[in-house]
Amino acid sequence: MYVWGARYAQAVRLDEISTPSRVAAADEGVSTSELGLAARNHGMPLEAMRYDLTPPGLHYLLIHYDIPYVDAESWQLTVDGVVDRPLTLDLATLRAMPAKTVRSTMECAGNGRARLEPRPVSQPWLVEAVGTAEWTGVPLRDVLVAAGVGARAVDVVFTGADHGVERGVEQDYQRKLSVGEATDPDVLLAYAMNGAPLAPQHGFPVRLLVPGWYGMTNVKWLTRVEVLDQAFSGFQQKAYVVRQSADEPGDPVTRIAPRALVIPPGFPDFMTRARVVRPGVVPLEGRAWSGRAPVAHVEVSVDRGATWAKASLGPDGGHRWAWRRWTHEWAATPGRHVITARAITEDGEVQPVDAPWNRGGFVNNAVHEIPVTCLEA
Amino acid sequence: MYVWGARYAQAVRLDEISTPSRVAAADEGVSTSELGLAARNHGMPLEAMRYDLTPPGLHYLLIHYDIPYVDAESWQLTVDGVVDRPLTLDLATLRAMPAKTVRSTMECAGNGRARLEPRPVSQPWLVEAVGTAEWTGVPLRDVLVAAGVGARAVDVVFTGADHGVERGVEQDYQRKLSVGEATDPDVLLAYAMNGAPLAPQHGFPVRLLVPGWYGMTNVKWLTRVEVLDQAFSGFQQKAYVVRQSADEPGDPVTRIAPRALVIPPGFPDFMTRARVVRPGVVPLEGRAWSGRAPVAHVEVSVDRGATWAKASLGPDGGHRWAWRRWTHEWAATPGRHVITARAITEDGEVQPVDAPWNRGGFVNNAVHEIPVTCLEA
Repeated sequence: MYVWGARYAQAVRLDEISTPSRVAAADEGVSTSELGLAARNHGMPLEAMRYDLTPPGLHYLLIHYDIPYVDAESWQLTVDGVVDRPLTLDLATLRAMPAKTVRSTMECAGNGRARLEPRPVSQPWLVEAVGTAEWTGVPLRDVLVAAGVGARAVDVVFTGADHGVERGVEQDYQRKLSVGEATDPDVLLAYAMNGAPLAPQHGFPVRLLVPGWYGMTNVKWLTRVEVLDQAFSGFQQKAYVVRQSADEPGDPVTRIAPRALVIPPGFPDFMTRARVVRPGVVPLEGRAWSGRAPVAHVEVSVDRGATWAKASLGPDGGHRWAWRRWTHEWAATPGRHVITARAITEDGEVQPVDAPWNRGGFVNNAVHEIPVTCLEA
Repeated sequence: MYVWGARYAQAVRLDEISTPSRVAAADEGVSTSELGLAARNHGMPLEAMRYDLTPPGLHYLLIHYDIPYVDAESWQLTVDGVVDRPLTLDLATLRAMPAKTVRSTMECAGNGRARLEPRPVSQPWLVEAVGTAEWTGVPLRDVLVAAGVGARAVDVVFTGADHGVERGVEQDYQRKLSVGEATDPDVLLAYAMNGAPLAPQHGFPVRLLVPGWYGMTNVKWLTRVEVLDQAFSGFQQKAYVVRQSADEPGDPVTRIAPRALVIPPGFPDFMTRARVVRPGVVPLEGRAWSGRAPVAHVEVSVDRGATWAKASLGPDGGHRWAWRRWTHEWAATPGRHVITARAITEDGEVQPVDAPWNRGGFVNNAVHEIPVTCLEA
């Protein structure tokens, strides 16, 4: 029988059920709690980078609590706070407003967490918490203009219908943007993904879409947009920060750091996922993206970073916030190789071999190394 | 930096890359290899049991190797072996044949593996490797009749386009059915899932659908159906067996054992997934299914199996192979409770509290226990 921790056996207070954040011991394998999150919240199999738009069901998912059931007929979005005209919008009203479609690569801020040593204990992403979709909705700016947002406005707070407890704090999921960030013309109240209504797990019926920002800002199952005349500092604002210890405030996690990933070449071993190729020209391809300065070029190494070659980078097609395809040809010879790629931005930011550790395990954009064995011919 | 095992550093033979099956040590956490599988192959969040048909993207997935790219225009299915008229079918031909739709609950044979002690090292499912869909396609029987399957036929072998290595054996994924099993009128060459073309991860363009059998038999990305005049014993036939040690042949894994699951009530803690409710009537609901004899009733316990009450079981709606909804009302009082449910079949098979251990970690249908804390009012 599956034995639950005795520590919960008599727990009747939230702070007994909901444990403090922690870092795994040096030799500690992945725990059942982490596995429970991994079984729910899946990454994108890397071979899905062959598609410009991630097929439904392959886009990564990170859901803090449960997927809430939201009835589209009765759903309403409240827009209030320090506005001239508080609004209550239903789905039909929103869909009747001028719409915009933005192609956006979304990535979890915790992507790469399980590759850090020591490992922060949370959703144990390796490298695959990413996906790209075309999101359609109403620019948030239009709704804020309709509500009348004046000079007093400081922050805009977004509340989702997902409810839970985290580190002892019962909450609906909430995140904020500054008024300046919220009125960027590409920020959407999105009701469609790749031309179809949002799936339940992606925020049906309406979610926030903030291109270039890590996923935590893209609040799903929106119920309320509240404009504040002061800075908001809710639970999730304090949780998604880069810091070394739990008692410092840390730096907020915001925009997506540059990353390139490789579609693992050849074929895999089922269990180890080790890759196998045969001698000859092996086409390499992958994707690169950045929520900071745009990706300028991608470099590939087949010798674990000893030498780098420039990959061929596909056009951005006018999609500033979407990943770009890159390709490279590798003349594989029998033996052992390590394939990796790195993105370099127009600002000269180079994706690192080692990313600095932080307690939450955020923004780890260290290059992904893929060991490949080339068999004898 | 993420450090790969030194054991692969010079590997140039398949049997060096592809490790033998093993069982985790008593105190061994989930390994990076298991986590790599969990990040790709996701379960169904249990709250998705609220839907009769699992929404796209929430159905469980188990893919042994990579998702292959299959071009629908050039795809062909070969039907050959000991048949009178070997066939080559393209998608248009298949879609022009009389179609059938079957609602089917599919479950991974390894569901529950990570709850076994000691834990067999493979895809580390807890309890959520399940989903229900309506599959549309051509009855395999019609195709076999068209090809002319005579009295010599023994087994029918199904080959997928997914290619990899497993325990040192390079292979395309293959499974068999006996001719008797293969000609069951509900076995389909399925090209649609819930009315839409199959997603890449579910076997686009055509997969086998064998209602009532564990997932491993439902071969995805079909390329060939071969009729043999002798018994087939390929790699996957020998892998999906119930046995105590690696050196015994074991009993084949076939049909889905009865199981009931509960939608976890109340709301969760993010990290531990511990559940919280408040005092009063808490509606409980879930689903129950069986690929053996049909589910006759479902029982619920709110005291970790000390006492059981009969749940209200919804109609099967003529869907013999789909899960059935059950409901129950629980008068929650402050304190600590363990909620569980069990399915009982028309044959009197009772879902067990403890399922017998086996080396592959298959068919673990032990009841799922959900610890729930009821707060003070």
